[in-house]
Amino acid sequence: MNARYSSLLLEKAVTEINRLPGIGSKTALRLALHLLRQDEGRVEALAESLVNMRQGVQYCQVCHNICDEERCEICSNPSRDSSIVCVVEDVQDVMAIENTMQYRGLYHVLGGVISPMDGIGPSDLQIESLVERVKKGGVEEVILALSPTMEGDTTNYYIYRKLEDTGVNQGSTAEGKVKVTVIARGIAQNDELQYTDEVTLGRALAGRVPYGK
Amino acid sequence: MNARYSSLLLEKAVTEINRLPGIGSKTALRLALHLLRQDEGRVEALAESLVNMRQGVQYCQVCHNICDEERCEICSNPSRDSSIVCVVEDVQDVMAIENTMQYRGLYHVLGGVISPMDGIGPSDLQIESLVERVKKGGVEEVILALSPTMEGDTTNYYIYRKLEDTGVNQGSTAEGKVKVTVIARGIAQNDELQYTDEVTLGRALAGRVPYGK
Repeated sequence: MNARYSSLLLEKAVTEINRLPGIGSKTALRLALHLLRQDEGRVEALAESLVNMRQGVQYCQVCHNICDEERCEICSNPSRDSSIVCVVEDVQDVMAIENTMQYRGLYHVLGGVISPMDGIGPSDLQIESLVERVKKGGVEEVILALSPTMEGDTTNYYIYRKLEDTGVNQGSTAEGKVKVTVIARGIAQNDELQYTDEVTLGRALAGRVPYGK
Repeated sequence: MNARYSSLLLEKAVTEINRLPGIGSKTALRLALHLLRQDEGRVEALAESLVNMRQGVQYCQVCHNICDEERCEICSNPSRDSSIVCVVEDVQDVMAIENTMQYRGLYHVLGGVISPMDGIGPSDLQIESLVERVKKGGVEEVILALSPTMEGDTTNYYIYRKLEDTGVNQGSTAEGKVKVTVIARGIAQNDELQYTDEVTLGRALAGRVPYGK
Protein backbone atom coordinates (compact mmCIF):
# COMPACT_ATOMS: atom_id res chain seq x y z
CA MET A 1 0.00 0.00 0.00
CA ASN A 2 1.59 3.19 -1.22
CA ALA A 3 -0.22 5.11 1.45
CA ARG A 4 -0.24 8.70 2.55
CA TYR A 5 -0.76 8.31 6.26
CA SER A 6 -3.10 10.77 7.91
CA SER A 7 -0.81 10.95 10.96
CA LEU A 8 2.94 11.50 11.00
CA LEU A 9 3.19 9.65 14.32
CA LEU A 10 1.47 6.65 12.75
CA GLU A 11 3.70 6.90 9.69
CA LYS A 12 6.85 6.96 11.81
CA ALA A 13 5.75 3.88 13.77
CA VAL A 14 4.82 2.01 10.59
CA THR A 15 8.21 2.88 9.07
CA GLU A 16 10.03 1.56 12.12
CA ILE A 17 7.99 -1.66 12.31
CA ASN A 18 8.47 -2.11 8.56
CA ARG A 19 12.25 -2.25 9.10
CA LEU A 20 11.89 -5.59 10.89
CA PRO A 21 12.78 -8.57 8.72
CA GLY A 22 9.84 -10.31 7.10
CA ILE A 23 7.36 -7.57 8.01
CA GLY A 24 5.94 -5.74 5.00
CA SER A 25 4.27 -2.36 5.01
CA LYS A 26 0.74 -3.79 5.18
CA THR A 27 1.58 -5.94 8.20
CA ALA A 28 3.41 -2.99 9.78
CA LEU A 29 0.30 -0.85 9.42
CA ARG A 30 -1.89 -3.62 10.82
CA LEU A 31 0.42 -3.98 13.84
CA ALA A 32 0.57 -0.22 14.41
CA LEU A 33 -3.23 0.08 14.31
CA HIS A 34 -3.47 -2.88 16.69
CA LEU A 35 -1.14 -1.11 19.14
CA LEU A 36 -3.24 2.05 18.84
CA ARG A 37 -6.21 0.08 20.16
CA GLN A 38 -4.25 -1.23 23.17
CA ASP A 39 -3.85 0.42 26.56
CA GLU A 40 -0.96 2.85 26.79
CA GLY A 41 0.56 0.59 29.46
CA ARG A 42 0.68 -2.38 27.08
CA VAL A 43 2.49 -0.41 24.40
CA GLU A 44 4.94 0.94 26.96
CA ALA A 45 5.58 -2.59 28.26
CA LEU A 46 6.40 -3.74 24.74
CA ALA A 47 8.69 -0.77 24.05
CA GLU A 48 10.43 -1.14 27.40
CA SER A 49 11.01 -4.87 26.98
CA LEU A 50 12.77 -4.24 23.67
CA VAL A 51 15.04 -1.51 25.01
CA ASN A 52 15.77 -3.43 28.24
CA MET A 53 16.66 -6.53 26.25
CA ARG A 54 18.96 -4.66 23.88
CA GLN A 55 20.69 -2.81 26.71
CA GLY A 56 20.83 -5.62 29.24
CA VAL A 57 21.48 -8.84 27.37
CA GLN A 58 25.01 -10.15 27.64
CA TYR A 59 26.90 -12.91 25.91
CA CYS A 60 28.35 -15.74 27.97
CA GLN A 61 32.13 -15.30 28.23
CA VAL A 62 32.63 -19.02 27.80
CA CYS A 63 30.19 -20.17 25.13
CA HIS A 64 28.84 -16.86 23.74
CA ASN A 65 25.26 -17.90 24.30
CA ILE A 66 22.84 -15.10 25.20
CA CYS A 67 22.43 -14.60 28.94
CA ASP A 68 21.82 -12.06 31.67
CA GLU A 69 25.13 -12.50 33.47
CA GLU A 70 28.77 -13.02 32.58
CA ARG A 71 28.33 -16.73 32.34
CA CYS A 72 25.21 -18.47 31.01
CA GLU A 73 23.07 -20.90 33.01
CA ILE A 74 24.36 -23.86 31.05
CA CYS A 75 28.06 -23.06 31.52
CA SER A 76 27.60 -22.35 35.23
CA ASN A 77 25.56 -25.50 35.86
CA PRO A 78 27.90 -27.95 37.63
CA SER A 79 25.80 -30.95 36.63
CA ARG A 80 26.52 -30.43 32.92
CA ASP A 81 29.36 -32.43 31.37
CA SER A 82 32.08 -29.88 30.64
CA SER A 83 34.19 -32.36 28.70
CA ILE A 84 31.87 -32.16 25.67
CA VAL A 85 31.42 -28.97 23.65
CA CYS A 86 28.75 -28.77 20.96
CA VAL A 87 29.50 -26.13 18.32
CA VAL A 88 26.35 -24.43 16.93
CA GLU A 89 25.58 -21.48 14.69
CA ASP A 90 23.31 -19.47 16.94
CA VAL A 91 21.14 -19.18 20.01
CA GLN A 92 18.13 -20.84 18.38
CA ASP A 93 20.23 -23.96 17.79
CA VAL A 94 21.08 -24.12 21.50
CA MET A 95 17.35 -23.98 22.28
CA ALA A 96 16.57 -26.65 19.68
CA ILE A 97 19.17 -29.02 21.12
CA GLU A 98 18.11 -28.27 24.70
CA ASN A 99 14.54 -29.13 23.73
CA THR A 100 15.64 -32.64 22.75
CA MET A 101 16.62 -33.22 26.40
CA GLN A 102 19.30 -35.55 25.00
CA TYR A 103 22.41 -33.46 25.56
CA ARG A 104 24.12 -32.77 28.87
CA GLY A 105 27.35 -31.17 27.63
CA LEU A 106 28.18 -27.51 27.00
CA TYR A 107 27.90 -25.35 23.88
CA HIS A 108 29.94 -22.97 21.80
CA VAL A 109 27.90 -20.46 19.80
CA LEU A 110 29.79 -19.36 16.67
CA GLY A 111 27.40 -16.56 15.73
CA GLY A 112 27.03 -17.81 12.16
CA VAL A 113 28.91 -19.82 9.55
CA ILE A 114 31.67 -18.89 7.13
CA SER A 115 29.96 -17.38 4.09
CA PRO A 116 32.15 -15.43 1.65
CA MET A 117 29.01 -14.45 -0.29
CA ASP A 118 27.70 -12.58 2.75
CA GLY A 119 31.16 -11.28 3.67
CA ILE A 120 31.39 -13.47 6.78
CA GLY A 121 34.90 -14.80 7.36
CA PRO A 122 36.33 -16.92 10.20
CA SER A 123 37.34 -13.80 12.14
CA ASP A 124 33.69 -12.68 12.34
CA LEU A 125 32.84 -15.88 14.20
CA GLN A 126 33.76 -17.28 17.62
CA ILE A 127 36.22 -19.79 16.13
CA GLU A 128 39.41 -18.43 17.71
CA SER A 129 37.76 -18.51 21.13
CA LEU A 130 36.71 -22.13 20.51
CA VAL A 131 40.30 -23.12 19.73
CA GLU A 132 41.54 -21.29 22.83
CA ARG A 133 38.86 -22.96 24.91
CA VAL A 134 39.87 -26.43 23.73
CA LYS A 135 43.57 -25.60 24.14
CA LYS A 136 42.99 -24.75 27.81
CA GLY A 137 42.16 -28.40 28.38
CA GLY A 138 39.26 -30.24 29.94
CA VAL A 139 37.51 -30.85 26.63
CA GLU A 140 37.42 -34.43 25.35
CA GLU A 141 35.00 -34.09 22.48
CA VAL A 142 33.99 -31.29 20.13
CA ILE A 143 30.66 -31.98 18.39
CA LEU A 144 30.14 -30.02 15.19
CA ALA A 145 26.41 -29.31 14.88
CA LEU A 146 26.24 -26.74 12.08
CA SER A 147 23.68 -26.60 9.26
CA PRO A 148 24.13 -29.29 6.59
CA THR A 149 24.81 -26.66 3.92
CA MET A 150 27.88 -25.76 1.88
CA GLU A 151 28.63 -22.97 4.36
CA GLY A 152 28.18 -25.30 7.31
CA ASP A 153 30.46 -27.90 5.71
CA THR A 154 33.11 -25.25 4.99
CA THR A 155 32.97 -24.05 8.57
CA ASN A 156 33.16 -27.62 9.90
CA TYR A 157 36.28 -28.22 7.83
CA TYR A 158 37.84 -24.91 8.85
CA ILE A 159 37.29 -25.65 12.54
CA TYR A 160 38.63 -29.18 12.13
CA ARG A 161 41.81 -27.87 10.50
CA LYS A 162 42.22 -25.16 13.12
CA LEU A 163 41.96 -27.70 15.91
CA GLU A 164 44.41 -29.95 14.07
CA ASP A 165 46.86 -27.06 13.67
CA THR A 166 46.95 -26.50 17.39
CA GLY A 167 47.61 -30.20 17.87
CA VAL A 168 44.78 -30.56 20.39
CA ASN A 169 43.32 -33.46 18.52
CA GLN A 170 46.75 -35.09 18.34
CA GLY A 171 46.96 -35.68 22.03
CA SER A 172 48.70 -32.43 23.06
CA THR A 173 46.42 -31.77 26.02
CA ALA A 174 46.36 -33.60 29.28
CA GLU A 175 43.20 -35.40 28.14
CA GLY A 176 45.03 -36.82 25.18
CA LYS A 177 43.48 -36.66 21.71
CA VAL A 178 40.38 -34.45 21.54
CA LYS A 179 37.68 -36.19 19.51
CA VAL A 180 36.05 -34.09 16.80
CA THR A 181 32.66 -35.46 15.76
CA VAL A 182 29.87 -34.22 13.52
CA ILE A 183 26.15 -34.83 14.06
CA ALA A 184 24.68 -37.59 11.92
CA ARG A 185 23.21 -36.78 8.55
CA GLY A 186 20.62 -39.01 7.03
CA ILE A 187 16.94 -39.19 6.35
CA ALA A 188 14.78 -37.40 8.90
CA GLN A 189 12.34 -39.22 11.14
CA ASN A 190 9.00 -39.83 9.33
CA ASP A 191 10.37 -38.60 5.99
CA GLU A 192 9.35 -40.65 2.99
CA LEU A 193 12.27 -42.22 1.18
CA GLN A 194 10.92 -41.52 -2.30
CA TYR A 195 10.65 -37.78 -1.60
CA THR A 196 14.09 -37.45 0.01
CA ASP A 197 16.57 -35.52 -2.14
CA GLU A 198 19.43 -37.52 -3.68
CA VAL A 199 22.23 -35.86 -1.68
CA THR A 200 20.57 -36.72 1.62
CA LEU A 201 19.73 -40.23 0.47
CA GLY A 202 23.26 -40.80 -0.86
CA ARG A 203 24.74 -39.63 2.44
CA ALA A 204 22.33 -41.79 4.40
CA LEU A 205 23.48 -44.83 2.40
CA ALA A 206 27.18 -44.00 2.68
CA GLY A 207 26.79 -43.34 6.39
CA ARG A 208 24.93 -46.58 7.16
CA VAL A 209 25.56 -48.13 10.58
CA PRO A 210 25.31 -51.73 11.79
CA TYR A 211 21.67 -52.57 12.61
CA GLY A 212 20.97 -52.99 16.28
CA LYS A 213 24.02 -50.94 17.23
CA MET B 1 9.30 -23.94 20.21
CA ASN B 2 8.67 -24.68 23.82
CA ALA B 3 11.91 -22.99 24.74
CA ARG B 4 13.64 -22.26 27.98
CA TYR B 5 15.30 -18.97 27.15
CA SER B 6 18.80 -18.48 28.44
CA SER B 7 18.05 -14.84 29.24
CA LEU B 8 15.05 -13.47 31.12
CA LEU B 9 15.37 -10.16 29.26
CA LEU B 10 15.14 -12.02 25.96
CA GLU B 11 12.21 -14.07 27.23
CA LYS B 12 10.34 -10.93 28.31
CA ALA B 13 10.85 -9.30 24.91
CA VAL B 14 9.76 -12.45 23.07
CA THR B 15 6.64 -12.67 25.24
CA GLU B 16 5.74 -9.07 24.47
CA ILE B 17 6.34 -9.41 20.72
CA ASN B 18 4.39 -12.68 20.77
CA ARG B 19 1.31 -10.77 21.99
CA LEU B 20 1.04 -8.99 18.65
CA PRO B 21 -1.63 -10.45 16.36
CA GLY B 22 -0.35 -12.91 13.77
CA ILE B 23 3.11 -13.19 15.35
CA GLY B 24 3.87 -16.64 16.74
CA SER B 25 6.56 -17.51 19.23
CA LYS B 26 9.11 -18.53 16.59
CA THR B 27 8.70 -15.27 14.68
CA ALA B 28 8.82 -13.35 17.97
CA LEU B 29 12.13 -15.00 18.84
CA ARG B 30 13.49 -14.31 15.36
CA LEU B 31 12.51 -10.63 15.65
CA ALA B 32 13.98 -10.32 19.15
CA LEU B 33 17.29 -11.83 18.03
CA HIS B 34 17.29 -9.51 15.02
CA LEU B 35 16.85 -6.52 17.33
CA LEU B 36 19.71 -7.80 19.51
CA ARG B 37 22.00 -7.53 16.49
CA GLN B 38 20.95 -3.93 15.78
CA ASP B 39 22.47 -0.75 17.20
CA GLU B 40 20.98 0.35 20.50
CA GLY B 41 19.85 3.55 18.77
CA ARG B 42 17.77 1.63 16.25
CA VAL B 43 15.96 -0.35 18.94
CA GLU B 44 15.32 2.84 20.90
CA ALA B 45 13.96 4.53 17.79
CA LEU B 46 11.51 1.67 17.28
CA ALA B 47 10.43 1.65 20.92
CA GLU B 48 10.03 5.43 20.98
CA SER B 49 8.02 5.52 17.77
CA LEU B 50 5.52 3.06 19.25
CA VAL B 51 5.09 4.95 22.52
CA ASN B 52 4.95 8.33 20.78
CA MET B 53 2.32 7.06 18.39
CA ARG B 54 0.18 5.57 21.14
CA GLN B 55 0.43 8.70 23.28
CA GLY B 56 0.22 11.29 20.53
CA VAL B 57 -2.22 10.06 17.92
CA GLN B 58 -5.61 11.72 17.98
CA TYR B 59 -8.89 11.02 16.26
CA CYS B 60 -10.40 13.67 14.02
CA GLN B 61 -13.36 15.27 15.80
CA VAL B 62 -15.33 15.37 12.57
CA CYS B 63 -14.66 12.06 10.80
CA HIS B 64 -12.80 10.02 13.48
CA ASN B 65 -9.91 9.30 11.15
CA ILE B 66 -6.48 9.02 12.79
CA CYS B 67 -4.58 12.32 12.82
CA ASP B 68 -2.08 14.42 14.76
CA GLU B 69 -4.41 17.35 15.43
CA GLU B 70 -8.04 17.90 16.35
CA ARG B 71 -9.11 17.79 12.75
CA CYS B 72 -7.60 15.53 10.10
CA GLU B 73 -5.93 16.76 6.92
CA ILE B 74 -8.84 15.64 4.79
CA CYS B 75 -11.51 17.38 6.87
CA SER B 76 -9.48 20.57 7.08
CA ASN B 77 -8.69 20.64 3.35
CA PRO B 78 -10.94 23.35 1.83
CA SER B 79 -10.61 21.86 -1.66
CA ARG B 80 -12.41 18.67 -0.64
CA ASP B 81 -16.14 18.42 -1.33
CA SER B 82 -17.78 18.55 2.10
CA SER B 83 -21.23 17.73 0.70
CA ILE B 84 -20.28 14.05 0.24
CA VAL B 85 -19.47 11.78 3.20
CA CYS B 86 -18.11 8.29 2.60
CA VAL B 87 -18.77 5.92 5.52
CA VAL B 88 -15.98 3.35 6.05
CA GLU B 89 -15.07 0.78 8.67
CA ASP B 90 -11.56 1.89 9.55
CA VAL B 91 -8.46 3.89 8.77
CA GLN B 92 -7.10 1.38 6.25
CA ASP B 93 -10.24 1.86 4.17
CA VAL B 94 -9.67 5.62 4.05
CA MET B 95 -6.14 4.95 2.75
CA ALA B 96 -7.41 2.45 0.19
CA ILE B 97 -9.98 4.91 -1.17
CA GLU B 98 -7.47 7.79 -1.11
CA ASN B 99 -5.10 5.62 -3.14
CA THR B 100 -7.67 5.36 -5.93
CA MET B 101 -7.38 9.16 -6.36
CA GLN B 102 -11.05 9.02 -7.44
CA TYR B 103 -12.71 10.56 -4.42
CA ARG B 104 -12.73 14.21 -3.39
CA GLY B 105 -15.33 14.13 -0.63
CA LEU B 106 -14.96 13.58 3.12
CA TYR B 107 -15.08 10.42 5.25
CA HIS B 108 -16.71 9.08 8.36
CA VAL B 109 -14.78 6.30 10.08
CA LEU B 110 -17.15 4.01 12.02
CA GLY B 111 -14.42 2.05 13.79
CA GLY B 112 -15.89 -1.32 12.80
CA VAL B 113 -19.19 -2.87 11.81
CA ILE B 114 -22.11 -4.18 13.85
CA SER B 115 -21.21 -7.72 14.85
CA PRO B 116 -23.25 -9.32 17.64
CA MET B 117 -20.92 -12.36 17.53
CA ASP B 118 -18.00 -10.13 18.57
CA GLY B 119 -20.15 -8.12 20.95
CA ILE B 120 -20.00 -4.99 18.80
CA GLY B 121 -23.25 -3.07 18.81
CA PRO B 122 -24.22 0.24 17.16
CA SER B 123 -23.24 2.19 20.28
CA ASP B 124 -19.64 0.96 19.97
CA LEU B 125 -19.38 2.61 16.56
CA GLN B 126 -19.43 6.19 15.34
CA ILE B 127 -22.99 5.91 14.02
CA GLU B 128 -24.63 8.45 16.33
CA SER B 129 -21.97 11.02 15.39
CA LEU B 130 -22.65 10.33 11.70
CA VAL B 131 -26.34 11.00 12.15
CA GLU B 132 -25.59 14.20 14.08
CA ARG B 133 -23.15 15.26 11.39
CA VAL B 134 -25.74 14.78 8.64
CA LYS B 135 -28.43 16.49 10.72
CA LYS B 136 -26.28 19.59 11.02
CA GLY B 137 -26.70 20.08 7.30
CA GLY B 138 -24.29 20.59 4.42
CA VAL B 139 -24.26 16.91 3.47
CA GLU B 140 -25.97 15.96 0.20
CA GLU B 141 -24.84 12.39 -0.17
CA VAL B 142 -23.82 9.63 2.24
CA ILE B 143 -21.90 6.85 0.51
CA LEU B 144 -21.91 3.53 2.38
CA ALA B 145 -18.56 1.82 1.70
CA LEU B 146 -18.51 -1.03 4.22
CA SER B 147 -17.31 -4.59 3.61
CA PRO B 148 -19.66 -6.69 1.49
CA THR B 149 -20.26 -9.11 4.37
CA MET B 150 -23.29 -9.95 6.46
CA GLU B 151 -22.01 -7.57 9.16
CA GLY B 152 -21.38 -4.82 6.61
CA ASP B 153 -24.86 -5.28 5.16
CA THR B 154 -26.44 -5.17 8.63
CA THR B 155 -24.55 -1.98 9.43
CA ASN B 156 -25.54 -0.42 6.10
CA TYR B 157 -29.18 -1.13 6.83
CA TYR B 158 -28.92 0.15 10.39
CA ILE B 159 -27.36 3.42 9.23
CA TYR B 160 -29.95 3.78 6.49
CA ARG B 161 -32.80 3.35 8.98
CA LYS B 162 -31.18 5.74 11.46
CA LEU B 163 -30.86 8.40 8.80
CA GLU B 164 -34.43 7.77 7.73
CA ASP B 165 -35.63 8.08 11.35
CA THR B 166 -34.16 11.54 11.62
CA GLY B 167 -35.86 12.46 8.41
CA VAL B 168 -32.66 13.80 6.84
CA ASN B 169 -33.14 11.70 3.76
CA GLN B 170 -36.73 12.90 3.51
CA GLY B 171 -35.77 16.45 2.74
CA SER B 172 -35.70 17.80 6.29
CA THR B 173 -32.39 19.66 5.89
CA ALA B 174 -31.86 22.82 3.92
CA GLU B 175 -30.25 20.74 1.17
CA GLY B 176 -33.42 18.73 0.78
CA LYS B 177 -33.29 14.96 0.59
CA VAL B 178 -29.92 13.52 1.55
CA LYS B 179 -29.01 10.77 -0.91
CA VAL B 180 -27.82 7.50 0.64
CA THR B 181 -25.82 5.39 -1.80
CA VAL B 182 -23.81 2.18 -1.53
CA ILE B 183 -20.65 1.35 -3.49
CA ALA B 184 -21.16 -0.97 -6.45
CA ARG B 185 -20.82 -4.71 -5.99
CA GLY B 186 -19.93 -6.89 -8.91
CA ILE B 187 -17.10 -8.87 -10.37
CA ALA B 188 -13.67 -7.39 -9.67
CA GLN B 189 -11.42 -6.07 -12.41
CA ASN B 190 -9.42 -8.92 -14.04
CA ASP B 191 -11.35 -11.60 -12.17
CA GLU B 192 -12.30 -14.64 -14.21
CA LEU B 193 -16.03 -15.17 -14.48
CA GLN B 194 -15.86 -18.94 -14.03
CA TYR B 195 -14.02 -18.60 -10.71
CA THR B 196 -16.30 -15.90 -9.30
CA ASP B 197 -18.51 -17.12 -6.45
CA GLU B 198 -22.22 -17.36 -7.17
CA VAL B 199 -23.33 -14.62 -4.76
CA THR B 200 -21.01 -12.09 -6.39
CA LEU B 201 -21.97 -13.21 -9.88
CA GLY B 202 -25.68 -13.15 -9.01
CA ARG B 203 -25.37 -9.61 -7.66
CA ALA B 204 -23.35 -8.52 -10.66
CA LEU B 205 -26.16 -9.78 -12.94
CA ALA B 206 -28.92 -8.23 -10.84
CA GLY B 207 -27.02 -4.94 -10.67
CA ARG B 208 -26.29 -4.71 -14.41
CA VAL B 209 -26.16 -1.19 -15.87
CA PRO B 210 -26.79 0.07 -19.44
CA TYR B 211 -23.68 -0.44 -21.56
CA GLY B 212 -21.89 2.74 -22.50
CA LYS B 213 -23.38 4.61 -19.56
